[in-house]
Amino acid sequence: MSTKIQVGIVGYGNLGKGVVSAIKQNPDMELVGIFTRRDPSAFSSENGLSFYKISDAESFRDKIDVMILCGGSATDLPEQGPEFAKLFNTVDSFDTHAKIPEYFNHVNDSAVTAGKVAVISTGWDPGLFSINRLMAESILSEGTDYTFWGKGVSQGHSDAIRRVAGVKNGVQYTVPSEEVINRIRGGETPDLTTRDKHIRECFVVAEEGADQEKIRQEIVSMPNYFSDYDTTVNFISEDELRRDHSEMPHGGFVIRSGVTGKNTRQIIEYSLKLESNPEFTASVLTAYARAAYRLSNEGVKGAKTVFDIAPGYLSPKSPEQLRKELL
Amino acid sequence: MSTKIQVGIVGYGNLGKGVVSAIKQNPDMELVGIFTRRDPSAFSSENGLSFYKISDAESFRDKIDVMILCGGSATDLPEQGPEFAKLFNTVDSFDTHAKIPEYFNHVNDSAVTAGKVAVISTGWDPGLFSINRLMAESILSEGTDYTFWGKGVSQGHSDAIRRVAGVKNGVQYTVPSEEVINRIRGGETPDLTTRDKHIRECFVVAEEGADQEKIRQEIVSMPNYFSDYDTTVNFISEDELRRDHSEMPHGGFVIRSGVTGKNTRQIIEYSLKLESNPEFTASVLTAYARAAYRLSNEGVKGAKTVFDIAPGYLSPKSPEQLRKELL
Repeated sequence: MSTKIQVGIVGYGNLGKGVVSAIKQNPDMELVGIFTRRDPSAFSSENGLSFYKISDAESFRDKIDVMILCGGSATDLPEQGPEFAKLFNTVDSFDTHAKIPEYFNHVNDSAVTAGKVAVISTGWDPGLFSINRLMAESILSEGTDYTFWGKGVSQGHSDAIRRVAGVKNGVQYTVPSEEVINRIRGGETPDLTTRDKHIRECFVVAEEGADQEKIRQEIVSMPNYFSDYDTTVNFISEDELRRDHSEMPHGGFVIRSGVTGKNTRQIIEYSLKLESNPEFTASVLTAYARAAYRLSNEGVKGAKTVFDIAPGYLSPKSPEQLRKELL
Repeated sequence: MSTKIQVGIVGYGNLGKGVVSAIKQNPDMELVGIFTRRDPSAFSSENGLSFYKISDAESFRDKIDVMILCGGSATDLPEQGPEFAKLFNTVDSFDTHAKIPEYFNHVNDSAVTAGKVAVISTGWDPGLFSINRLMAESILSEGTDYTFWGKGVSQGHSDAIRRVAGVKNGVQYTVPSEEVINRIRGGETPDLTTRDKHIRECFVVAEEGADQEKIRQEIVSMPNYFSDYDTTVNFISEDELRRDHSEMPHGGFVIRSGVTGKNTRQIIEYSLKLESNPEFTASVLTAYARAAYRLSNEGVKGAKTVFDIAPGYLSPKSPEQLRKELL
């Protein structure tokens, strides 16, 4: 077997494709194959990649060091996370915040029994943002923190727009409120809900002859999704939508504003500006695959989150090199 | 012994005072005493704190869980780091970047032999900035990163100003170039030296009757310190200096601009805006004292850096609580 870390991918959507790219950027890693529920022969000619049926994964137990699970949190991961942790070291991006404790327990049971490491819920939120929330509150124990998302496409809100009568297509961006961010950067610590912190921008392609004002009203008054937010609706052509809104940018901020000593203001801010959300998430998963591999080699087992993993495990450099070059 | 983490402090300068404040903000910690080279009786009435001679520290071996070393990197820590690691778990802020590998080895020898944990070189740079450099380059392996310092007081440059003939007092601020930061945030990755990234602002109190233009010329042309930078010199009164320039603000940015996939631009930025550099550094050291204590309880020994410590160790919360509340 090669001395490179042998990586497998489960699922070939945007995230899985991002992981393929990320592995190419990391010379210490090698992609063994991609496991899919679809017919592998449909992909066979694609860029020299190897595709296999997901049901054949078990026969790769001795050929793959880490399996990166690129399915969704709604239905794929609750099933795949615990199953694959019985066979492989795994990394996933399970992001249903409320269900993380339960998911952790299921995956942990499998991983402990099998002697594998399973890094769950990594990416940028949960993931990098979580680390920053934890570290900032541990350092500035008296303070307030704020997480802002965007500017980025919200899939759920885009779907909601597309269900409105007369709408042919549409995209919704969640946009953090610059005004609120500047107040916090300036040292204020206002009480804010998610809706205070964000505005919603919609780009809509209407059916020919549809009543645009009626569509606009229906969107801005939609309960849960839009009615409590400042929402703008822009009508554009199908061509404009394709040209200007087909990328998946995202990003956001974690800001903690705290005090030390006699009311001394200290502000920690972490921000991401991403041209592609899935490609960036994939890069985070790939770095954590290196960590999973190394932890497993050290005899560690069980489910782990970003909170449990020392930063040094993410880097291909040795501890000596890290101390010399980056400390 | 109390169930709280019993903390000692070595050195009572700005950093040591900051640690006293930080411990008060952390209910799981208790300050046992402050060890100083000065005469302890000189401090005895101060805020109910206990002061001891540094030479008496050894008798506190069983009473202190972690000793936070608040001396300077030039002469105090090279001696105190290895000595105290023979007796206590320690945390320090050794920040002479070029000497970190050597310092690590000395402290590690002591700590391994004594079975103690010694967290070296923590604070914000080295420390939090180092973590961000490491994580950002591990995630965006193709990219460029930039560290900017400031706006903040540089002690070395302030001292250089005060040595100029005709100068009564002065303070120098290192200021990151907003123009350069905005170019990087916009996606450019220029080649930059430290001097391209920063400008220098001086506030000078001249002796009565001194030739201000001559002072200005001497400062801006001073080799190593100012001649290669854009430097501004402002003359102010002693009162203005005391009123407006007696705080110790600092901060800075670590920005990595990288690409994924087919030239997709991704930007990670970490920034600090600090009203007090020593109080913030003290808060970081205090959080790492918690980590040192816990690692030691798990049987870990030897010198550690921020790269070796999982984020969860910094928080007083349990892993379950962290996963539920912060992930």
